[in-house]
Amino acid sequence: MSGDIGSTGPSAPSPPLSSHDRTRHRRLRDQGRTDRAALDDVLAAGFVCHLGVVVDGHPMVVPTVYGTDGTWLYLHGSVASRSLLAAPDAPVCVTVTHVDGLVLARSVFEHGVNYRSAVVYGRPRLVTDPEEKLTGLRLLTEQSAPGQWGYARRPSRKELAATALLALSLEEASVKVRTGPPDDGDGPDAELPVWAGTLPLVTTFGALVPDPGLRPGLTPPPHLADRGGTRVG
Amino acid sequence: MSGDIGSTGPSAPSPPLSSHDRTRHRRLRDQGRTDRAALDDVLAAGFVCHLGVVVDGHPMVVPTVYGTDGTWLYLHGSVASRSLLAAPDAPVCVTVTHVDGLVLARSVFEHGVNYRSAVVYGRPRLVTDPEEKLTGLRLLTEQSAPGQWGYARRPSRKELAATALLALSLEEASVKVRTGPPDDGDGPDAELPVWAGTLPLVTTFGALVPDPGLRPGLTPPPHLADRGGTRVG
Repeated sequence: MSGDIGSTGPSAPSPPLSSHDRTRHRRLRDQGRTDRAALDDVLAAGFVCHLGVVVDGHPMVVPTVYGTDGTWLYLHGSVASRSLLAAPDAPVCVTVTHVDGLVLARSVFEHGVNYRSAVVYGRPRLVTDPEEKLTGLRLLTEQSAPGQWGYARRPSRKELAATALLALSLEEASVKVRTGPPDDGDGPDAELPVWAGTLPLVTTFGALVPDPGLRPGLTPPPHLADRGGTRVG
Repeated sequence: MSGDIGSTGPSAPSPPLSSHDRTRHRRLRDQGRTDRAALDDVLAAGFVCHLGVVVDGHPMVVPTVYGTDGTWLYLHGSVASRSLLAAPDAPVCVTVTHVDGLVLARSVFEHGVNYRSAVVYGRPRLVTDPEEKLTGLRLLTEQSAPGQWGYARRPSRKELAATALLALSLEEASVKVRTGPPDDGDGPDAELPVWAGTLPLVTTFGALVPDPGLRPGLTPPPHLADRGGTRVG
């Protein structure tokens, strides 16, 4: 099989760095995507990533929101603890994953998950330029809630100063995608009386929930009102 | 504000280890959950985690599926590269995150995300006992696709031997949860003519997609057929 995040087999996902394990990467070449458009697609489809840092030799993985301009990935520095802020040029790994469904094979061994995943490696820099900080925060805000940067109150000088923003280059990145039916449709297991296929996973925005303390008479702007029912990922 | 994965403020998520940054953790005590039920709930609500390992001093974060019996978290070893299999007792961090919605505040600064997140730290062991290996694989399979262990073909001896399974103790874990409306409903920003509230994110299973190579006449079993439309997370 081609390997995926649910596989019980030996061909489960290769390390995202192609230089890391050449043999395995060859075997999984159908999952590895190197083109830039694939990276942009995976990043555009989400707004939450998992940021990995090393603290005292131990890995730490925290979820956080991100924004991007295609060159830089912007992240909140504070999310990854003071240790990252103290050494913003330490190596990090940022992973964005969209789970698209379950792969239900005839055998347990071939079960898996359809997914799209992007991994970015690098050493982020602390954004200090006020202009870039505003740009980064705008990208970060618009990634999850497009329209809000022009609608909500923008950060004050004090708020800006209190915000630690990191910029990570998108230069070193890889994308892996698994789509389609299970891989045991053409082997001996295809004769088993076992239903096989996929069970898609769909993420959508629900209906807006107004703040209980909302000023009377305020209605949601179109960029929020139109979002209910739209798909995410 | 209480800090969350979308916050632009200085009180964005504390490190998951309470011993790591006491001051910040105190400030974020409303988000930290220490009770065991909270951990079980977050783990039970999903089946994909992000596994962080350190490879040559660099963090690596990969998505993978998991299963649990409440004492151990079972993971595929192969997913995390040969380096982890070569040193299964190296420190890892496993993070499970459910994104529940966007927090749309009056100010950009207070924007954020409602979420539930569990972080488990430890040094996994390689499962070698055949009985435990089967149990672990069953838990892993049933976590995402309950009913499939008793329905699909179970692993052969050869498949079992080819599967590397890791067991991570749940002893060192923490949970963080952010729910509810934005936090600026009682400050000066509450007077702004800006709509505020939350935009929930809902993940559901869609309709089953049969394998194009499916044997004629096979229909999905109830444990799969009944899953369409059900909520995940």
